[in-house]
Amino acid sequence: MSSKRIYIQEVATRDGFQNEARFVDTDAKVALIDRLSACGYAKIEATSFTSPKAIPALRDAEAVMHRIARRKDVVYTVLVPNVRGAERALSCGVDEVNLVMSVSESHNRANLRMSREQSFVQLSDVIRVVGQTDVAINVSLSTALGCPMEGDIEPTQVLGWMQRFADLGVQGVTLCDTTGMAYPSQVGALCRAARERFASLELTLHFHNTRGMALANTLAALAAGIDRFDASLGGLGGCPYAPGATGNVCTEELVHMLELEGYDTGVDLAAVLDASALLPELIGHDVPSQLLKAGRRLDLHAPPCVGADGLPTQNALAQTT
Amino acid sequence: MSSKRIYIQEVATRDGFQNEARFVDTDAKVALIDRLSACGYAKIEATSFTSPKAIPALRDAEAVMHRIARRKDVVYTVLVPNVRGAERALSCGVDEVNLVMSVSESHNRANLRMSREQSFVQLSDVIRVVGQTDVAINVSLSTALGCPMEGDIEPTQVLGWMQRFADLGVQGVTLCDTTGMAYPSQVGALCRAARERFASLELTLHFHNTRGMALANTLAALAAGIDRFDASLGGLGGCPYAPGATGNVCTEELVHMLELEGYDTGVDLAAVLDASALLPELIGHDVPSQLLKAGRRLDLHAPPCVGADGLPTQNALAQTT
Repeated sequence: MSSKRIYIQEVATRDGFQNEARFVDTDAKVALIDRLSACGYAKIEATSFTSPKAIPALRDAEAVMHRIARRKDVVYTVLVPNVRGAERALSCGVDEVNLVMSVSESHNRANLRMSREQSFVQLSDVIRVVGQTDVAINVSLSTALGCPMEGDIEPTQVLGWMQRFADLGVQGVTLCDTTGMAYPSQVGALCRAARERFASLELTLHFHNTRGMALANTLAALAAGIDRFDASLGGLGGCPYAPGATGNVCTEELVHMLELEGYDTGVDLAAVLDASALLPELIGHDVPSQLLKAGRRLDLHAPPCVGADGLPTQNALAQTT
Repeated sequence: MSSKRIYIQEVATRDGFQNEARFVDTDAKVALIDRLSACGYAKIEATSFTSPKAIPALRDAEAVMHRIARRKDVVYTVLVPNVRGAERALSCGVDEVNLVMSVSESHNRANLRMSREQSFVQLSDVIRVVGQTDVAINVSLSTALGCPMEGDIEPTQVLGWMQRFADLGVQGVTLCDTTGMAYPSQVGALCRAARERFASLELTLHFHNTRGMALANTLAALAAGIDRFDASLGGLGGCPYAPGATGNVCTEELVHMLELEGYDTGVDLAAVLDASALLPELIGHDVPSQLLKAGRRLDLHAPPCVGADGLPTQNALAQTT
């Protein structure tokens, strides 16, 4: 078995919570992040320094960042849309800023209300400001594996945007399967091309489980040498185009599979499951996580009650395959 | 892209319906199977000739088999627990009988109320009776990739039971991940071993998505040369050990991924999705299928309304990654 290190980056308190109707109380956010900080993640995307009007769910970004107990072995990153957001984030001493734009024009306009070129100018300004500090910069490229309005995205488009940001000196790029359109062979090909061309960039894959393929896509990314994945506790995240759909790849399901495959995630799966179990009360509804319902594969069950003949006193199951 | 043929076997009307509290009316079962017959499946597990007391949901097995309109290009198989069930099935002119026992002793006792050796004797009797006809025989080995009571199952155990049934002349064996305990590297190893030792057996993999890994496990099985999969419309199936858990691998999600990966499933995905959309009314609740909510990856969406500036008149999304 391999014991290759895989880096897990938690996004539930940003990508998850921003999608929730109910405002999660600042105390609860801080308590959750503090709990997650002890779980062994490489990185936690704690919140977003967007306009409180645009994303009221994360309007308490400063308070959250000031009040969490930060661990030295965890990178605390935050989403930042513009220079104003970057200044707010820097004033909180974040470790990294995460910038976002879409590879597809339609999605960028719908998501950010500007063209891709306008986004690039705006993010270049952010990179100039943050580049004067020792805070790391990551760029998340949305719709890198498909756009819900334009369909397929040419890998050359993705690599082209990676190049433009690499030229500006960013440390990392995240390829985002924003609405769960990725499929394994596509993921493998894009990841191989990206790794080959940008060997020195920290490369993250960000999957959504919208069409059930998040873990299959993860296998394809692993085979292409990817060692860094975003994931969301409980599978929080949703998809604006598919009401009721599953969200981001579920952290506990990702870690569970990676551990079974022999990888070293550094993550304490039991602690993550305990944290995930707190979510339904925080957000007011069930979470997509299947692992939370079913337990780990070796969380065993007692046999049914048996009679004097050693057989179950009633047919607990019936012809299940 | 490969255009290798993959055979899809629908189990929703057996493995799915047997798990439902609500009795699905015989007319509705017949209508659904007739609809599925036009979808391009290689095989449909139509019903189960178990005792009506044990599985009341499938008490109308004869009526279903007599009333469906059978197509020559589809194999109609039925679950059969014993000689009595086999005689009932044969009287309906089934194409195949599917026998079931567990690789693990505890699960066999819980599921079938007898020891594995008793099951083997009983199924040997069935094979003797059916072997005198031209009806095919498949054996489904439950808990082949893990037992919810005993944990890990040694591959040698699985191969040993396969050998005993191969020696009795069965045509096919299904390796069942009954409670979703399989993981990709384990699946790959078992499938390679089984294919190598039993090259002439028709080998099926039967996955459950209990812990989210069904499609990842499918990739591993494909890589090991497996070309035949059970799947359940809408993801029906559930798990007795995990209330509310996802059931069998979802047919439409499996076919969707296989087609994207370039395989030829023969299945009409649009027709399968139409059929899946009928399930919630039939069974009285939502189904696990994510694809039914989200649509296929290239079922595109219109951009949000735009103003004179070509930008959305409101922020339809907001900083989604």
